[in-house]
Amino acid sequence: MGAAEVRRHNLALVLREVAEGEPVSRAAVAALTGLTRGTVSSLVDELLAADLVSELAAARGGTGRPANPLQLNRSGPAGLGVEIGVDHVGACVVDLSGAVRAVRTVPSAHRDRPPSDGLERAAVLAREVIAEAGLPVVGVGVALPGVVGPQGELQRAPNLPRWIDVGVGGMLSDLLDGLPVDTGNEADLAALAELWFGGGPPDVLHVSGEIGVGGAIVLGGDLFRGPGGRAGELGHVVVDPDGPECSCGGRGCLEQAAGQDALVRAAGAADVEDLVRRRAEPAPAAAIDGAGRALGVALAGAVNLLDVPVVVLGGLYARLGAPLRDAVAGELRTRVLTSPPVDVRCSVLGPDATLRGAAGSVVRARLRNP
Amino acid sequence: MGAAEVRRHNLALVLREVAEGEPVSRAAVAALTGLTRGTVSSLVDELLAADLVSELAAARGGTGRPANPLQLNRSGPAGLGVEIGVDHVGACVVDLSGAVRAVRTVPSAHRDRPPSDGLERAAVLAREVIAEAGLPVVGVGVALPGVVGPQGELQRAPNLPRWIDVGVGGMLSDLLDGLPVDTGNEADLAALAELWFGGGPPDVLHVSGEIGVGGAIVLGGDLFRGPGGRAGELGHVVVDPDGPECSCGGRGCLEQAAGQDALVRAAGAADVEDLVRRRAEPAPAAAIDGAGRALGVALAGAVNLLDVPVVVLGGLYARLGAPLRDAVAGELRTRVLTSPPVDVRCSVLGPDATLRGAAGSVVRARLRNP
Repeated sequence: MGAAEVRRHNLALVLREVAEGEPVSRAAVAALTGLTRGTVSSLVDELLAADLVSELAAARGGTGRPANPLQLNRSGPAGLGVEIGVDHVGACVVDLSGAVRAVRTVPSAHRDRPPSDGLERAAVLAREVIAEAGLPVVGVGVALPGVVGPQGELQRAPNLPRWIDVGVGGMLSDLLDGLPVDTGNEADLAALAELWFGGGPPDVLHVSGEIGVGGAIVLGGDLFRGPGGRAGELGHVVVDPDGPECSCGGRGCLEQAAGQDALVRAAGAADVEDLVRRRAEPAPAAAIDGAGRALGVALAGAVNLLDVPVVVLGGLYARLGAPLRDAVAGELRTRVLTSPPVDVRCSVLGPDATLRGAAGSVVRARLRNP
Repeated sequence: MGAAEVRRHNLALVLREVAEGEPVSRAAVAALTGLTRGTVSSLVDELLAADLVSELAAARGGTGRPANPLQLNRSGPAGLGVEIGVDHVGACVVDLSGAVRAVRTVPSAHRDRPPSDGLERAAVLAREVIAEAGLPVVGVGVALPGVVGPQGELQRAPNLPRWIDVGVGGMLSDLLDGLPVDTGNEADLAALAELWFGGGPPDVLHVSGEIGVGGAIVLGGDLFRGPGGRAGELGHVVVDPDGPECSCGGRGCLEQAAGQDALVRAAGAADVEDLVRRRAEPAPAAAIDGAGRALGVALAGAVNLLDVPVVVLGGLYARLGAPLRDAVAGELRTRVLTSPPVDVRCSVLGPDATLRGAAGSVVRARLRNP
């Protein structure tokens, strides 16, 4: 490494210690990194100048110079997350620490409209949350409900038949004054949010109840993308070969048994909110149990294939709580071949997980490469 | 690295060039490795002394000293492969080049017998093939039809109910004069054989028709074992939730639709050989098509999850050929969400793939670490 590279490396190292240990003193950072106090001071000055780190009021007590602890700058570079759902859009700003500073989600029917409509809607919402947060947004992460290709395009979303090979990144960047835009699958970003902000374990199969059923695989603390880069698709596992036709062209897919629409219909509920409210009544409870079993059957296949120890339930599944979780866990107990029982948990992040993952990916990238 | 470590590293490097390029001259090895000719000569002398490499008769022609090309020593350290099937045992010796020098498979009913019976049977067969091959066997690889645990024990084999937590390695080593024994899942070893000896691609989902349905995942030219080390289990994916009970305790597993017994029964055949012989007749053809579709449904789920570009069909599936392959490919075309069609192939190695993988793992380890 040349000197410039070494300095960049050390800058990232110091920033990581601040991020993980905040509030933390320069002396502690020096001790943790093995760098000299002089080097740390110079690097901290650079991070202060870049608004990545800020100084807290000096701690009192002891003799000598006050400590002046450091933390990530809550007014520094921020990340914008945008979520394009099947029938909603969301936008969210997080600061460098990953804390949500503004978030908004509104209904927006995308099924029968051209992608440009949805993206314009998302851009309007994004401007609103940026204004509300009042932070300098440096990049955008977009969560998409389908298969994201190697150039970040939305290749295919079974529930958005008009969104085929859509260059979401470029279009949204144009609508947002040229901000750099990255795209990702909604389930992948929810799984990363759980890992980054929810204290989630490093090896997880994450499954999220949305219009579709979103799956994501985290191995060793990183997203597993597979050789083709699009791994983790779980919604179209067949749970009933003679079941209803699915938007993907198949039949009897998990989504038809455990997706939002199927669940609401089976429960005789008016909509998702009605289902959640009435989840203890007999018909909804039976529907939730049935969906949980179908989900358990599909997840057992995935767990046997991947041998992951933990399943995290997100989105609607997390809101439905213990009855769904227990139905899933019951099927896994019967059907998973490996010995220790799979740990089935509900996501701790709630409905904004995907947006936090999308926005968080921006600030995580900045922290890794200050 | 210390000097001894550097030398060991270079020794492996030279051996790899011989293995990949044989027959190859010392000069070519020097050019390929960037080592001096003096260093290469000294390392080759060491490999000759260890019987890992042998010299061919000197090539004639040109002026100067004759070339004396090198190749892996066909009389050098050899690997023994042992296969414990549900109703057969096999044993096989391969030389350093991976070529089969002796192989034998005999019926042996293991379902209702204690594991020690099967292992004694395997040891007898192993002694026979070792004697036939007449090579110095340096280690044993054992293929097992179930879940292999972290200590190499057979944790569980749904079709061998009496084989639970069996320390196969230690027991077989005792029966074979203390030879070092490694164990692995039969499907994993068949998949590795395809990669090592069949020119298989680096990213593959391998599925093999046996009594059970064996699955294995190869990513980047290596076995993917998953966080728990037992990844790739595919036989107990549910393809029909109301289907027949399965030996695993579940219901409607793939094995019940596409395992050997189910296929033979559905075809009205007497046994596997009868099925293969009569595969073009209407009833067997319909059974093969049905099994292929069930297999395709299960594989589509796995491919969506892993995003691998190639599926290799092994064991009985390879013997059934195009009709089965086409049924599988048809389901994958409909059900896989990612764009490029999945490449479905039959294994090129034939019925000894698992044994070759088991024996090959011994010599591959020796070549990596001479």
